[in-house]
Formats: sequence, C-alpha cells, structure tokens
Amino acid sequence: MSLLVVGSVAFDAIKTPYGKTDKILGGAATHFSLSASFFTQVRVVAVVGEDFTEKEEAVFRQRHIDTGGIVHEKGKSFFWSGEYGENVNEAKTLDTQLGVFGSFNPQIPEKFKDSHYVFLANVDPVLQVRVRQQMPHAKFVGGDTMNYWITGHRENLKEMLKQVDALLINDGEARMLAGDPSLARAAHKILEMGPQALVIKHGEYGATVFFKDGAFGIGRHPFRAPTLPIEAVIDPTGAGDSFAGGFMGYIASQEKLTRDVFKRAMFYGGVMGSFAVEAFGTERLQKLTREEIDERYKTFRELTHLE
Amino acid sequence: MSLLVVGSVAFDAIKTPYGKTDKILGGAATHFSLSASFFTQVRVVAVVGEDFTEKEEAVFRQRHIDTGGIVHEKGKSFFWSGEYGENVNEAKTLDTQLGVFGSFNPQIPEKFKDSHYVFLANVDPVLQVRVRQQMPHAKFVGGDTMNYWITGHRENLKEMLKQVDALLINDGEARMLAGDPSLARAAHKILEMGPQALVIKHGEYGATVFFKDGAFGIGRHPFRAPTLPIEAVIDPTGAGDSFAGGFMGYIASQEKLTRDVFKRAMFYGGVMGSFAVEAFGTERLQKLTREEIDERYKTFRELTHLE
Repeated sequence: MSLLVVGSVAFDAIKTPYGKTDKILGGAATHFSLSASFFTQVRVVAVVGEDFTEKEEAVFRQRHIDTGGIVHEKGKSFFWSGEYGENVNEAKTLDTQLGVFGSFNPQIPEKFKDSHYVFLANVDPVLQVRVRQQMPHAKFVGGDTMNYWITGHRENLKEMLKQVDALLINDGEARMLAGDPSLARAAHKILEMGPQALVIKHGEYGATVFFKDGAFGIGRHPFRAPTLPIEAVIDPTGAGDSFAGGFMGYIASQEKLTRDVFKRAMFYGGVMGSFAVEAFGTERLQKLTREEIDERYKTFRELTHLE
Repeated sequence: MSLLVVGSVAFDAIKTPYGKTDKILGGAATHFSLSASFFTQVRVVAVVGEDFTEKEEAVFRQRHIDTGGIVHEKGKSFFWSGEYGENVNEAKTLDTQLGVFGSFNPQIPEKFKDSHYVFLANVDPVLQVRVRQQMPHAKFVGGDTMNYWITGHRENLKEMLKQVDALLINDGEARMLAGDPSLARAAHKILEMGPQALVIKHGEYGATVFFKDGAFGIGRHPFRAPTLPIEAVIDPTGAGDSFAGGFMGYIASQEKLTRDVFKRAMFYGGVMGSFAVEAFGTERLQKLTREEIDERYKTFRELTHLE
C-alpha cells in the first residue's frame, strides 16, 4: 500500500573520521523514502530550491518513488553541514541554512490523499499536525521529532503525539521528552501522551518497541531488535530515517498489523539503518538490492535467535 | 561441574537515587558466586578480615557455595563506598579501603584444583595469571578486568589475556583496551590478544559475544542477548559480576560447549544481571528462585524472538 512521507529533502556536507563530502543529497524524507522504497510504493511531500536538479530527482525516480509532492521554489534547498567525531551518536552542526524549507507549509496533492500509511518526518509539530489532518484515510501514522521541538515547542509537540500511532525517536530524545533517565519509565510516560507504540532507537545497540496496553490488539510486551556490530560507521547521517523507512515500509507492505509484522518491521528497520551508515549520504541505499536486505535480515535474526 | 571463582569478597556502602545502605556484603566474587550457584557447584577463593562473620558466611552456605577457599586474616575486609547518579553506568567512588585484600595472594586449596571451570574476577592480572597456573585441569576459563589494569598494568594484563578462554568486560573497557572507539573493531583487536571469546556487556542494552575464527569449533558469528527494559535500577553494583555468574554457571552445568550452550549462557547472564539490580547489594540474589530465573529467561527470549 502507498506510504506518504512529509519532511526535508535537502543537501548535506558531512565530515566523519572516514572522510568528507561536498554538498550531497540528504534530508530525512530522502533517506526515509529511499529506504522504504524497497518495501512499498512511496510518495514524498517536500520543498526544494533551484539547486535541486534533475540529477537529484533521478535518485528518487530510480527507486520508483513518486516525487509529485516535491514543490520547487525560488531559492536554495535546506542545507546542513556537520561533523562526527569518534562518537557516531553525536553530530556537531557546523552550518544550517533553512533556505526555502524555512517557509515549508506542506500541501498534500489530491492524488496522495488516499495514502493509508503516513510518516511525519522531523519538522515543526504544527506542520505535522496539519499534514495529519489532510490524511483522513490514514490507517497507520508514524512520526519523528527532535530535541529542538521537545525543549522549545512542547505544547505543539503534545498535540502531534496525540495524532500518531507510532513515535520513533532515539534514547536521548525519549529521556528528554519524558523527563526521566530510565528508558523503561520514559517509554510508559510517552505512551501516556498519545502514541500506541513507541520505537526507541538505541544506535548501535538496536531498537526497542514499547506498546500501550492493548495497542493494535497485539499485547503490551516490548520487543527488541538488534543491529549488526559494524566495524566502520562511515557516515551515521540518515541512519534513524533509514530505520524508520524500513520499519514503515515493511508495515505498509503487509495486509494486517499483527505482532509478527511489527517484530519483522523492527528487524527491517535495523537492517536498513545498518546499510545506511556504510557509505556517505544516500550512496549505499542507492546501490542496495532486495537480496542484500533479505540476506542481512537473516544475519540479524541469527544474531539473537535462540531455539 | 565445579566452578571456581577467585576475586573480592568485600563490603560496600552504596548510595543510589533509590536510597542508601550501610556496610553490606559485596565484592565481585560474592555476586558472581551467588549468581552462578543457581546453575552449578561453586567454590570461592578470597580473603576477608575480621568484619566478615558467620552472618556473611551464611549467605554463601545458604546457596551451597563452598567457602573452603575464603582465608580469614587479621584486619578489615576490602571496603568500597560509591554513589550512582541517574546514569547507572557510572559510579562515583567515595571511599576505597583495601584492608586485607591489599596483600591478597590467592592459594588454591588442593581440593579445589580439580575444578574444570574457573572465573578470574577483577583482581591484579599478575594474580589472575598465578591462579590460572594453579589450575591445570581447567577446561574453560573466564576473566574480567577493569580500567585501572588496562591503563596502568597493560603488560601484565596482556599475559592474562593469553590465559583466558573468554574475557568479559563492558563497552568502555573494550574500547579502552583496544584503543578503538568502534566496538566491532575493538572486539577483533582484543581477540587477537588471546581470548577465544569476548563478551562485551552493554549495560541496559544487553551483551554481545564475539568469537575468534573457529573458536571452540562453533563458528565466528557474534551473538547478542538482550536485557529487559527495567523501570527502576535500584542498585547497579554487581550487575556485571552477576552476568558473569549466570554465564559461567550455565556453561559449567552443561556437558559440551556448543554454540547453543554459548547462546543460552549469554541469555542467562542477562537474566541474572537484570535480577541483581532490583535490590541493594546481594539482596535480590539471596531471595531468588530457579523458577523465577526460568520465567525471566522465557521473557528475554520472547523479547527478541522472531519466528
């Protein structure tokens, strides 16, 4: 089934211990949709500037992603420049230029409004809510957020939390949002704020999904998916969005949302995140094949499988 | 089969966000042996002072642990006082008094020398090597160490690493020992230093075992065991030693060291660590039953099990 994503399509300049890039294609919606495209039909809603050319569009088209919701405006695309040290979980922002993204006000094209699956990538929660309200047929809505909205726009974020089925954030964001250093307690506090499921991404340690009692009729016990121990994280940018793409893409590809589907979605999320970090930007996802995904899925299963 | 542990039997005074204790029974060998005692016959070699009375000895005896290797000397037992903040992975040491432990020179009683399983808890690597050499019948030797020995006694530690089958350390120690921020790369570097298997404990994220190529004839693929997301870590002291106790105790209880045994040992390690933190000191392990252990083992399996 069709999966709609709303978020940033941007350019990044990245420095890591393994090298550096000039301005390359990036943005949450970009990583998300490339990742999800291996599982289902993806539709993107975003805004870009004049620096986004046919060359960048081709990256989406090659993966059969519907770019009909990418609005082209005068000016420059969102640009982020950052540097990672040895701790791949922490980026140091060197430069941020909002460009046309600064006045992003997503309008969902009519032809996208029948999407049953929706992902609200990390943008202003006011916009996330506005998008949600334009999608009356959505069966399952996932959402992301970040520190900036948690600390400075809490009331708007709370409204957004009531309108998503699953929130996907990382350890630090979960602790900050709940104001609680215990992840398990933080999870329960966040579930009380609205979402039926909370996926907490632990970086190189995998991810855990916590459920509200009775959520989706699949019980309340948490489930944890691993990641592969990776020798060289070339570029962690977009790992979380790639996780979300694998997770949402797999769910959108299935008829029913059972507990087993949720479990497999967590594993596919981990698999896609693990590929994303193997090269700079979207390079690895562009070259990826479904066979490689299935192969790694098996490896992940073996990694934790007890008879 | 009998499992010998050599290490500290001590007293701790602990403060955590959940409360504080006076001087209570602690020490690596204490947590280890209580934990392992649920799986196999345990023998302890340690030194204690006059403050270690019949009351403390009863804690071991109640779990049928052979205390014939605990030497009583004039003076005081090793004492550690520490405080944990909200980050349960970091203890702030308030006081350390070596007492009789300062001149610990473990002699293995004759009747213990037939032990097939040995655990060298965290003590001076010179002593660990000396113990290893007194155990010619050992089939499987596990060892632990800490920052202090990694930074200040590296040559001695390297000798110890050649004499253990499995090293059990945490993330920070692995990175420090290998001088590499990537856990996967650090693992390979450490395996080159000697051990056949390296168990890296990730605190609340579980633990991963890495194998040297062909180790124990069970292949080289890593295996990861989870931990339960715990709402309240009352006291993290001894969690790592309890993990090691469950891991080594389960291995010692099995006829052969297969890959499946190793996997289950990793899960039992996680299970025992998760119990240890539910109360101060050894309180939870003292009250634990085998039924509770098996119940939680099932929960852990469910937590990551993919059909």
